[in-house]
Amino acid sequence: MEAARSVSSEKKRVRKPRDAAATRQRILDAAIGEFAANGFSGARIENIARLAKSNIRMIYHHFGSKDGLYVEVLEHVLDQLREDELGLDFEHVSPREGVHKIFDFIHGHFASHPELMSLLSSENLNKAEFLQRSSRIPERASPVIAALAGMLRRGAEQGVFRPDVDALHLYITIVSLAYFHRSNAYTLSQIFRHDLLDPVWQQQHRDQAREMVFRFLEPPARQG
Amino acid sequence: MEAARSVSSEKKRVRKPRDAAATRQRILDAAIGEFAANGFSGARIENIARLAKSNIRMIYHHFGSKDGLYVEVLEHVLDQLREDELGLDFEHVSPREGVHKIFDFIHGHFASHPELMSLLSSENLNKAEFLQRSSRIPERASPVIAALAGMLRRGAEQGVFRPDVDALHLYITIVSLAYFHRSNAYTLSQIFRHDLLDPVWQQQHRDQAREMVFRFLEPPARQG
Repeated sequence: MEAARSVSSEKKRVRKPRDAAATRQRILDAAIGEFAANGFSGARIENIARLAKSNIRMIYHHFGSKDGLYVEVLEHVLDQLREDELGLDFEHVSPREGVHKIFDFIHGHFASHPELMSLLSSENLNKAEFLQRSSRIPERASPVIAALAGMLRRGAEQGVFRPDVDALHLYITIVSLAYFHRSNAYTLSQIFRHDLLDPVWQQQHRDQAREMVFRFLEPPARQG
Repeated sequence: MEAARSVSSEKKRVRKPRDAAATRQRILDAAIGEFAANGFSGARIENIARLAKSNIRMIYHHFGSKDGLYVEVLEHVLDQLREDELGLDFEHVSPREGVHKIFDFIHGHFASHPELMSLLSSENLNKAEFLQRSSRIPERASPVIAALAGMLRRGAEQGVFRPDVDALHLYITIVSLAYFHRSNAYTLSQIFRHDLLDPVWQQQHRDQAREMVFRFLEPPARQG
């Protein structure tokens, strides 16, 4: 009896932090969906509580406020992007293969994370008012640009890339070419009476983007 | 512009319809600003009435509903884009000059119409729910793509462009390269600790985009 009781009370002790972490994660997951669908001002804390099978008090306990929860949502989806980017292995690849990896990764990540695009588009309509409150986001962004800059430098040394490409400009161009034809596909499809979300059209656009980027990177010697 | 000027120089006998037209235009202008700043659901009809120096009854008299006003706002800003595009003269220009004209026009138009970008980004977060209600918008969009297709065809015939470029894919790429680094500049500037809205950075990005597009268009014979 004594032994059984001490085991079960021990279980209780470790269960609490684990449950708290699980609750916190459920709230965060629900919040990602709600903020992505409705933006900061349109999102409702009651909806998040219902979707997370939690309650409003618990949300405030874990995140302080609607603002705090929203900032954590932004940090979380951008952390995912950075973590996956930093998981790419550039050790034994040529500069061209490295840029191909980044290109494919960015296209794949935005294709499979529409909520990231919605959150970013929406936060830009807020002029990044909330994202500015995060110190974590800019701290984690630099390694990606540094890795790309390294490949551009190596590629220029090896004569496979032109020498005058800025990593930030190129990165933002690659993201633009992975993002816009998805983020704005709804209005564009209506305006041009053509389903841009059709997988064939998306694949053609990605192929065009890839060719455009790599032709741009060719060194002067290879140009006609 | 000419038409507007000649209307405003007409005599007093047309004052009533002119006043009605002027009121309607003031409401529309105020609505563009309010919907661009706050999106459809965040926009307030009271704010539009105040900004237009009008009242809510007058707004409903002219536009029927908040939905109706919003759809007219979308039609109006896209009409402006199309009218200006159709004003470009492609009669006596080479295919390269023609595509340059389109490229410069698109960059210039989005740079000087941030409200158009906000309205489109916001309407995409609505999955184009409201834009779908307009039959006018798709009717006016096709001539632009047709003009670009004509230049691509002429350019391919003359051997200055590759022959396999699709006008819609290219148009959307050009818009993407004019749009994303502006529409998403707020979050990107925070994430990468670099002011993307700095005019020098914007100019560099535009130059890079231009070079990327025109290198992509080069025919196989010119490639290394």
